[in-house]
Amino acid sequence: MWQQRELTLKAHPRGFHLITDQITRALEAMTPVEVGLLHVFIQHTSASLTINENADPTVRADFESHFNRAVPENAPYYQHVFEGSDDMPAHIKASLLGASVQLPVSKGRLNLGTWQGVCLCEHRDQGGPRRLVLTLAGE
Amino acid sequence: MWQQRELTLKAHPRGFHLITDQITRALEAMTPVEVGLLHVFIQHTSASLTINENADPTVRADFESHFNRAVPENAPYYQHVFEGSDDMPAHIKASLLGASVQLPVSKGRLNLGTWQGVCLCEHRDQGGPRRLVLTLAGE
Amino acid sequence: MWQQRELTLKAHPRGFHLITDQITRALEAMTPVEVGLLHVFIQHTSASLTINENADPTVRADFESHFNRAVPENAPYYQHVFEGSDDMPAHIKASLLGASVQLPVSKGRLNLGTWQGVCLCEHRDQGGPRRLVLTLAGE
Repeated sequence: MWQQRELTLKAHPRGFHLITDQITRALEAMTPVEVGLLHVFIQHTSASLTINENADPTVRADFESHFNRAVPENAPYYQHVFEGSDDMPAHIKASLLGASVQLPVSKGRLNLGTWQGVCLCEHRDQGGPRRLVLTLAGE
Repeated sequence: MWQQRELTLKAHPRGFHLITDQITRALEAMTPVEVGLLHVFIQHTSASLTINENADPTVRADFESHFNRAVPENAPYYQHVFEGSDDMPAHIKASLLGASVQLPVSKGRLNLGTWQGVCLCEHRDQGGPRRLVLTLAGE
Repeated sequence: MWQQRELTLKAHPRGFHLITDQITRALEAMTPVEVGLLHVFIQHTSASLTINENADPTVRADFESHFNRAVPENAPYYQHVFEGSDDMPAHIKASLLGASVQLPVSKGRLNLGTWQGVCLCEHRDQGGPRRLVLTLAGE
Protein backbone atom coordinates (compact mmCIF):
# COMPACT_ATOMS: atom_id res chain seq x y z
CA MET A 1 0.00 0.00 0.00
CA TRP A 2 1.47 3.28 -1.16
CA GLN A 3 0.10 6.69 -0.25
CA GLN A 4 1.47 10.14 -0.94
CA ARG A 5 0.47 13.64 0.01
CA GLU A 6 1.94 17.09 0.07
CA LEU A 7 2.18 19.25 3.15
CA THR A 8 3.08 22.93 3.09
CA LEU A 9 4.78 24.30 6.18
CA LYS A 10 4.16 27.97 6.93
CA ALA A 11 7.19 30.27 6.83
CA HIS A 12 9.50 29.74 9.79
CA PRO A 13 12.30 32.04 10.94
CA ARG A 14 15.86 30.90 10.31
CA GLY A 15 16.67 28.14 12.77
CA PHE A 16 15.61 24.65 13.82
CA HIS A 17 11.92 23.95 14.45
CA LEU A 18 10.09 20.85 15.65
CA ILE A 19 7.45 19.70 13.16
CA THR A 20 6.69 16.27 14.65
CA ASP A 21 3.09 17.29 15.35
CA GLN A 22 2.42 18.26 11.74
CA ILE A 23 3.97 15.01 10.50
CA THR A 24 1.95 12.99 12.98
CA ARG A 25 -1.30 14.68 11.93
CA ALA A 26 -0.55 14.05 8.27
CA LEU A 27 0.16 10.40 9.05
CA GLU A 28 -3.12 10.09 10.95
CA ALA A 29 -4.98 11.40 7.90
CA MET A 30 -3.69 8.50 5.79
CA THR A 31 -4.89 4.90 5.84
CA PRO A 32 -2.96 3.31 8.71
CA VAL A 33 -0.38 0.59 8.16
CA GLU A 34 0.62 -2.02 10.70
CA VAL A 35 4.28 -2.07 9.59
CA GLY A 36 5.84 0.46 7.27
CA LEU A 37 7.94 3.51 6.61
CA LEU A 38 7.09 7.18 6.25
CA HIS A 39 9.37 9.12 3.92
CA VAL A 40 9.34 12.88 4.42
CA PHE A 41 10.99 14.87 1.65
CA ILE A 42 11.54 18.64 1.43
CA GLN A 43 11.39 20.08 -2.09
CA HIS A 44 13.96 22.82 -1.46
CA THR A 45 17.73 23.25 -1.51
CA SER A 46 18.15 25.80 1.28
CA ALA A 47 16.16 24.08 4.02
CA SER A 48 16.47 20.54 5.30
CA LEU A 49 15.09 17.92 7.68
CA THR A 50 16.70 16.17 10.61
CA ILE A 51 15.77 14.06 13.61
CA ASN A 52 16.94 15.28 16.99
CA GLU A 53 16.08 16.06 20.60
CA ASN A 54 12.43 16.97 21.07
CA ALA A 55 12.42 18.57 24.52
CA ASP A 56 14.86 21.36 25.31
CA PRO A 57 14.69 24.35 22.93
CA THR A 58 18.31 25.26 23.69
CA VAL A 59 19.40 22.17 21.76
CA ARG A 60 17.87 23.67 18.65
CA ALA A 61 19.41 27.07 19.40
CA ASP A 62 22.81 25.40 19.75
CA PHE A 63 22.31 23.69 16.38
CA GLU A 64 21.80 27.09 14.79
CA SER A 65 24.93 28.45 16.53
CA HIS A 66 27.03 25.49 15.49
CA PHE A 67 26.02 25.46 11.84
CA ASN A 68 26.52 29.22 11.51
CA ARG A 69 30.12 28.75 12.60
CA ALA A 70 30.77 25.53 10.68
CA VAL A 71 29.38 26.98 7.45
CA PRO A 72 30.13 30.72 7.60
CA GLU A 73 28.51 33.46 5.59
CA ASN A 74 30.69 35.59 3.31
CA ALA A 75 33.51 33.07 3.01
CA PRO A 76 36.03 34.70 0.67
CA TYR A 77 36.02 31.69 -1.67
CA TYR A 78 32.26 31.62 -2.36
CA GLN A 79 31.43 32.39 -5.98
CA HIS A 80 27.64 31.99 -5.69
CA VAL A 81 26.89 35.23 -3.84
CA PHE A 82 24.21 37.06 -5.83
CA GLU A 83 21.26 35.71 -3.80
CA GLY A 84 22.51 37.10 -0.47
CA SER A 85 25.05 36.12 2.14
CA ASP A 86 22.73 33.55 3.70
CA ASP A 87 22.17 31.66 0.44
CA MET A 88 25.33 29.64 -0.24
CA PRO A 89 25.68 28.56 3.42
CA ALA A 90 22.02 27.48 3.27
CA HIS A 91 22.74 25.16 0.35
CA ILE A 92 25.70 23.57 2.13
CA LYS A 93 23.81 23.16 5.42
CA ALA A 94 20.92 21.59 3.51
CA SER A 95 23.19 18.91 2.05
CA LEU A 96 24.93 18.28 5.37
CA LEU A 97 21.60 17.57 7.06
CA GLY A 98 19.71 16.12 4.10
CA ALA A 99 16.49 16.59 2.18
CA SER A 100 14.62 13.70 3.73
CA VAL A 101 14.05 11.58 6.79
CA GLN A 102 12.51 8.15 6.81
CA LEU A 103 10.67 7.02 9.91
CA PRO A 104 9.59 3.53 10.93
CA VAL A 105 5.84 3.10 11.38
CA SER A 106 4.54 0.42 13.75
CA LYS A 107 0.86 -0.23 14.50
CA GLY A 108 -0.08 2.89 12.59
CA ARG A 109 2.21 5.24 14.50
CA LEU A 110 5.67 6.72 14.16
CA ASN A 111 8.06 4.45 16.03
CA LEU A 112 10.54 7.06 17.25
CA GLY A 113 12.70 6.97 20.35
CA THR A 114 11.45 8.81 23.43
CA TRP A 115 13.57 11.88 22.79
CA GLN A 116 13.35 12.01 19.02
CA GLY A 117 11.48 14.64 17.05
CA VAL A 118 11.49 15.76 13.42
CA CYS A 119 12.97 19.20 12.76
CA LEU A 120 12.58 21.62 9.91
CA CYS A 121 16.00 23.22 9.48
CA GLU A 122 15.35 26.63 7.93
CA HIS A 123 18.66 27.96 6.66
CA ARG A 124 17.45 31.14 4.92
CA ASP A 125 16.62 34.44 6.61
CA GLN A 126 13.35 34.64 4.64
CA GLY A 127 12.77 31.10 3.45
CA GLY A 128 9.01 31.40 3.09
CA PRO A 129 6.65 28.42 3.16
CA ARG A 130 8.27 25.03 2.52
CA ARG A 131 6.72 22.11 0.64
CA LEU A 132 7.03 18.53 1.85
CA VAL A 133 6.14 15.32 0.03
CA LEU A 134 5.13 12.52 2.39
CA THR A 135 5.15 8.95 1.11
CA LEU A 136 3.76 6.20 3.32
CA ALA A 137 4.34 2.58 2.40
CA GLY A 138 3.60 -0.55 4.36
CA GLU A 139 0.90 -3.07 5.03
CA MET B 1 6.10 -7.95 2.13
CA TRP B 2 6.94 -5.80 5.15
CA GLN B 3 8.81 -7.05 8.19
CA GLN B 4 10.06 -5.20 11.21
CA ARG B 5 12.12 -6.10 14.23
CA GLU B 6 14.05 -4.39 16.97
CA LEU B 7 17.70 -5.02 17.70
CA THR B 8 19.47 -3.79 20.82
CA LEU B 9 23.18 -3.14 20.51
CA LYS B 10 25.23 -3.59 23.65
CA ALA B 11 26.96 -0.52 25.05
CA HIS B 12 29.91 0.58 22.94
CA PRO B 13 32.65 3.02 23.90
CA ARG B 14 32.58 6.44 22.28
CA GLY B 15 33.72 6.08 18.69
CA PHE B 16 32.86 4.36 15.42
CA HIS B 17 32.09 0.64 15.42
CA LEU B 18 31.28 -1.80 12.62
CA ILE B 19 27.93 -3.51 13.14
CA THR B 20 27.53 -5.09 9.69
CA ASP B 21 27.58 -8.59 11.20
CA GLN B 22 24.70 -7.87 13.57
CA ILE B 23 22.69 -6.31 10.74
CA THR B 24 23.40 -9.28 8.47
CA ARG B 25 22.35 -11.76 11.15
CA ALA B 26 19.12 -9.87 11.79
CA LEU B 27 18.41 -9.84 8.04
CA GLU B 28 19.02 -13.59 7.83
CA ALA B 29 16.45 -14.14 10.59
CA MET B 30 13.74 -12.50 8.46
CA THR B 31 11.91 -14.01 5.49
CA PRO B 32 14.22 -13.36 2.54
CA VAL B 33 13.28 -11.02 -0.31
CA GLU B 34 14.62 -11.23 -3.85
CA VAL B 35 14.64 -7.45 -4.31
CA GLY B 36 14.16 -4.92 -1.56
CA LEU B 37 15.48 -2.43 0.94
CA LEU B 38 16.51 -2.74 4.56
CA HIS B 39 15.96 0.40 6.63
CA VAL B 40 18.00 0.57 9.84
CA PHE B 41 16.92 3.27 12.26
CA ILE B 42 18.49 4.23 15.60
CA GLN B 43 16.04 5.47 18.23
CA HIS B 44 18.46 7.91 19.85
CA THR B 45 19.63 11.49 19.38
CA SER B 46 23.24 11.19 20.52
CA ALA B 47 24.32 8.20 18.43
CA SER B 48 23.98 7.69 14.70
CA LEU B 49 24.54 5.32 11.79
CA THR B 50 26.73 5.62 8.75
CA ILE B 51 28.16 3.51 5.95
CA ASN B 52 31.91 3.58 5.51
CA GLU B 53 35.12 1.61 5.07
CA ASN B 54 34.93 -1.87 6.57
CA ALA B 55 38.58 -2.92 6.72
CA ASP B 56 41.12 -0.64 8.36
CA PRO B 57 40.31 0.34 11.97
CA THR B 58 42.34 3.54 11.65
CA VAL B 59 39.65 4.90 9.33
CA ARG B 60 37.20 4.70 12.21
CA ALA B 61 39.73 6.23 14.62
CA ASP B 62 40.23 9.12 12.19
CA PHE B 63 36.47 9.64 12.01
CA GLU B 64 36.41 10.05 15.79
CA SER B 65 39.35 12.50 15.63
CA HIS B 66 37.75 14.53 12.86
CA PHE B 67 34.33 14.83 14.43
CA ASN B 68 35.79 15.80 17.81
CA ARG B 69 37.51 18.74 16.14
CA ALA B 70 34.65 19.69 13.81
CA VAL B 71 32.11 19.66 16.65
CA PRO B 72 34.05 20.68 19.76
CA GLU B 73 33.07 20.14 23.37
CA ASN B 74 32.60 23.16 25.61
CA ALA B 75 32.04 25.64 22.78
CA PRO B 76 31.41 28.98 24.54
CA TYR B 77 28.11 29.48 22.71
CA TYR B 78 26.45 26.20 23.79
CA GLN B 79 23.44 26.73 26.04
CA HIS B 80 22.50 23.07 26.45
CA VAL B 81 25.27 22.05 28.86
CA PHE B 82 23.62 20.42 31.88
CA GLU B 83 23.99 16.83 30.58
CA GLY B 84 27.78 16.99 30.30
CA SER B 85 30.31 18.36 27.85
CA ASP B 86 29.91 15.40 25.50
CA ASP B 87 26.13 15.82 25.16
CA MET B 88 25.55 18.79 22.87
CA PRO B 89 28.33 17.74 20.43
CA ALA B 90 26.74 14.28 20.38
CA HIS B 91 23.41 15.73 19.23
CA ILE B 92 25.08 17.71 16.44
CA LYS B 93 27.21 14.78 15.28
CA ALA B 94 24.10 12.58 15.27
CA SER B 95 22.32 14.92 12.87
CA LEU B 96 25.39 15.32 10.65
CA LEU B 97 25.61 11.57 10.18
CA GLY B 98 21.93 10.70 10.42
CA ALA B 99 19.61 8.39 12.32
CA SER B 100 19.18 5.82 9.59
CA VAL B 101 20.76 4.03 6.68
CA GLN B 102 18.88 2.24 3.94
CA LEU B 103 20.56 -0.66 2.22
CA PRO B 104 19.66 -2.38 -1.04
CA VAL B 105 18.84 -6.07 -0.72
CA SER B 106 19.37 -8.39 -3.70
CA LYS B 107 18.73 -12.15 -3.70
CA GLY B 108 18.16 -12.04 0.04
CA ARG B 109 21.45 -10.33 0.88
CA LEU B 110 22.74 -6.84 1.54
CA ASN B 111 24.02 -5.47 -1.75
CA LEU B 112 26.86 -3.32 -0.44
CA GLY B 113 30.09 -2.39 -2.18
CA THR B 114 33.19 -4.44 -1.43
CA TRP B 115 34.53 -1.94 1.09
CA GLN B 116 31.28 -0.82 2.68
CA GLY B 117 30.21 -1.61 6.21
CA VAL B 118 27.56 -0.24 8.55
CA CYS B 119 28.87 1.72 11.53
CA LEU B 120 27.35 2.59 14.86
CA CYS B 121 28.61 6.08 15.66
CA GLU B 122 28.57 6.35 19.45
CA HIS B 123 28.95 10.01 20.34
CA ARG B 124 28.49 9.81 24.13
CA ASP B 125 31.13 8.78 26.66
CA GLN B 126 28.63 6.45 28.33
CA GLY B 127 25.92 5.94 25.74
CA GLY B 128 24.72 2.59 27.03
CA PRO B 129 22.86 0.07 24.89
CA ARG B 130 21.29 1.45 21.70
CA ARG B 131 18.00 0.37 20.15
CA LEU B 132 17.59 -0.11 16.40
CA VAL B 133 14.40 -0.65 14.42
CA LEU B 134 14.96 -2.70 11.25
CA THR B 135 12.33 -2.59 8.52
CA LEU B 136 12.66 -4.93 5.56
CA ALA B 137 10.48 -4.42 2.51
CA GLY B 138 10.60 -6.12 -0.84
CA GLU B 139 9.36 -9.11 -2.72
CA MET C 1 6.19 -3.75 -7.21
CA TRP C 2 9.93 -3.80 -6.64
CA GLN C 3 12.53 -3.24 -9.34
CA GLN C 4 16.28 -2.93 -9.08
CA ARG C 5 19.05 -2.14 -11.52
CA GLU C 6 22.67 -1.11 -11.47
CA LEU C 7 24.02 1.98 -13.14
CA THR C 8 27.72 2.68 -13.63
CA LEU C 9 28.74 6.33 -13.79
CA LYS C 10 31.81 7.09 -15.87
CA ALA C 11 34.80 8.53 -14.02
CA HIS C 12 34.25 12.15 -12.95
CA PRO C 13 36.90 14.60 -11.76
CA ARG C 14 36.95 15.44 -8.07
CA GLY C 15 34.00 17.72 -7.33
CA PHE C 16 30.22 17.86 -7.43
CA HIS C 17 28.40 16.77 -10.61
CA LEU C 18 24.74 16.74 -11.57
CA ILE C 19 23.52 13.26 -12.50
CA THR C 20 19.78 13.93 -12.54
CA ASP C 21 19.58 13.10 -16.25
CA GLN C 22 21.15 9.68 -15.82
CA ILE C 23 18.83 8.92 -12.89
CA THR C 24 15.80 10.07 -14.87
CA ARG C 25 16.74 7.92 -17.85
CA ALA C 26 17.23 4.88 -15.62
CA LEU C 27 13.82 5.52 -14.04
CA GLU C 28 12.19 5.77 -17.46
CA ALA C 29 13.63 2.38 -18.38
CA MET C 30 11.77 0.74 -15.50
CA THR C 31 8.07 -0.11 -15.29
CA PRO C 32 6.44 3.14 -14.16
CA VAL C 33 4.74 3.49 -10.78
CA GLU C 34 1.96 5.93 -9.96
CA VAL C 35 3.19 6.50 -6.39
CA GLY C 36 6.51 5.35 -5.06
CA LEU C 37 10.10 5.97 -4.06
CA LEU C 38 13.37 5.64 -5.93
CA HIS C 39 16.35 4.72 -3.76
CA VAL C 40 19.73 5.55 -5.27
CA PHE C 41 22.69 3.97 -3.50
CA ILE C 42 26.40 4.39 -4.24
CA GLN C 43 28.53 1.31 -3.55
CA HIS C 44 31.64 3.24 -2.52
CA THR C 45 33.08 4.87 0.59
CA SER C 46 34.92 7.81 -0.96
CA ALA C 47 32.13 9.25 -3.12
CA SER C 48 28.61 10.17 -2.10
CA LEU C 49 25.23 11.44 -3.27
CA THR C 50 23.34 14.59 -2.37
CA ILE C 51 20.41 16.67 -3.56
CA ASN C 52 21.08 20.33 -4.24
CA GLU C 53 20.73 23.28 -6.60
CA ASN C 54 20.47 22.23 -10.23
CA ALA C 55 21.17 25.46 -12.09
CA ASP C 56 24.25 27.51 -11.25
CA PRO C 57 27.55 25.59 -11.53
CA THR C 58 29.21 27.94 -9.01
CA VAL C 59 27.06 26.36 -6.28
CA ARG C 60 28.78 23.07 -6.95
CA ALA C 61 32.20 24.74 -7.09
CA ASP C 62 31.48 26.34 -3.70
CA PHE C 63 30.54 22.93 -2.29
CA GLU C 64 33.97 21.64 -3.32
CA SER C 65 35.68 24.66 -1.75
CA HIS C 66 33.72 24.34 1.48
CA PHE C 67 34.27 20.63 1.98
CA ASN C 68 37.99 20.93 1.24
CA ARG C 69 38.27 23.40 4.10
CA ALA C 70 35.90 21.64 6.48
CA VAL C 71 37.64 18.28 5.99
CA PRO C 72 41.28 19.13 5.29
CA GLU C 73 43.89 16.91 3.72
CA ASN C 74 47.00 16.01 5.70
CA ALA C 75 45.48 16.69 9.10
CA PRO C 76 48.25 15.84 11.59
CA TYR C 77 45.98 13.44 13.49
CA TYR C 78 45.05 11.19 10.53
CA GLN C 79 46.41 7.64 10.90
CA HIS C 80 44.93 6.26 7.66
CA VAL C 81 47.30 7.92 5.20
CA PHE C 82 48.76 5.19 3.00
CA GLU C 83 46.21 5.61 0.17
CA GLY C 84 47.08 9.26 -0.46
CA SER C 85 46.24 12.61 1.08
CA ASP C 86 42.82 12.74 -0.60
CA ASP C 87 41.69 9.38 0.79
CA MET C 88 40.84 9.92 4.45
CA PRO C 89 39.04 13.25 3.76
CA ALA C 90 37.08 11.43 1.05
CA HIS C 91 35.80 8.87 3.56
CA ILE C 92 34.71 11.59 5.98
CA LYS C 93 33.01 13.69 3.29
CA ALA C 94 31.22 10.58 2.04
CA SER C 95 29.68 9.97 5.46
CA LEU C 96 28.78 13.64 5.93
CA LEU C 97 26.83 13.64 2.69
CA GLY C 98 25.64 10.05 2.68
CA ALA C 99 25.67 6.98 0.46
CA SER C 100 22.09 7.27 -0.74
CA VAL C 101 19.25 9.56 -1.64
CA GLN C 102 15.62 8.57 -1.78
CA LEU C 103 13.35 10.44 -4.14
CA PRO C 104 9.55 10.56 -4.25
CA VAL C 105 8.02 9.30 -7.49
CA SER C 106 4.61 10.59 -8.58
CA LYS C 107 2.81 9.63 -11.80
CA GLY C 108 5.92 7.83 -12.97
CA ARG C 109 8.28 10.77 -12.52
CA LEU C 110 10.71 12.08 -9.94
CA ASN C 111 8.80 14.56 -7.79
CA LEU C 112 11.62 16.98 -7.01
CA GLY C 113 11.40 20.68 -6.27
CA THR C 114 12.03 23.11 -9.13
CA TRP C 115 15.63 23.75 -8.14
CA GLN C 116 16.58 20.26 -6.97
CA GLY C 117 18.99 17.97 -8.75
CA VAL C 118 20.88 14.83 -7.78
CA CYS C 119 24.65 15.22 -7.43
CA LEU C 120 27.47 12.74 -7.54
CA CYS C 121 30.01 13.98 -4.99
CA GLU C 122 33.37 12.66 -6.15
CA HIS C 123 35.81 13.08 -3.29
CA ARG C 124 38.86 11.32 -4.77
CA ASP C 125 41.32 12.80 -7.24
CA GLN C 126 41.07 9.66 -9.39
CA GLY C 127 37.88 7.99 -8.24
CA GLY C 128 37.23 6.09 -11.44
CA PRO C 129 33.80 4.83 -12.47
CA ARG C 130 31.22 4.61 -9.67
CA ARG C 131 28.51 1.97 -9.29
CA LEU C 132 24.98 2.84 -8.23
CA VAL C 133 22.17 0.48 -7.22
CA LEU C 134 18.72 1.89 -8.01
CA THR C 135 15.70 0.38 -6.28
CA LEU C 136 12.24 1.49 -7.35
CA ALA C 137 9.24 0.56 -5.26
CA GLY C 138 5.65 1.68 -5.54
CA GLU C 139 2.39 0.86 -7.24
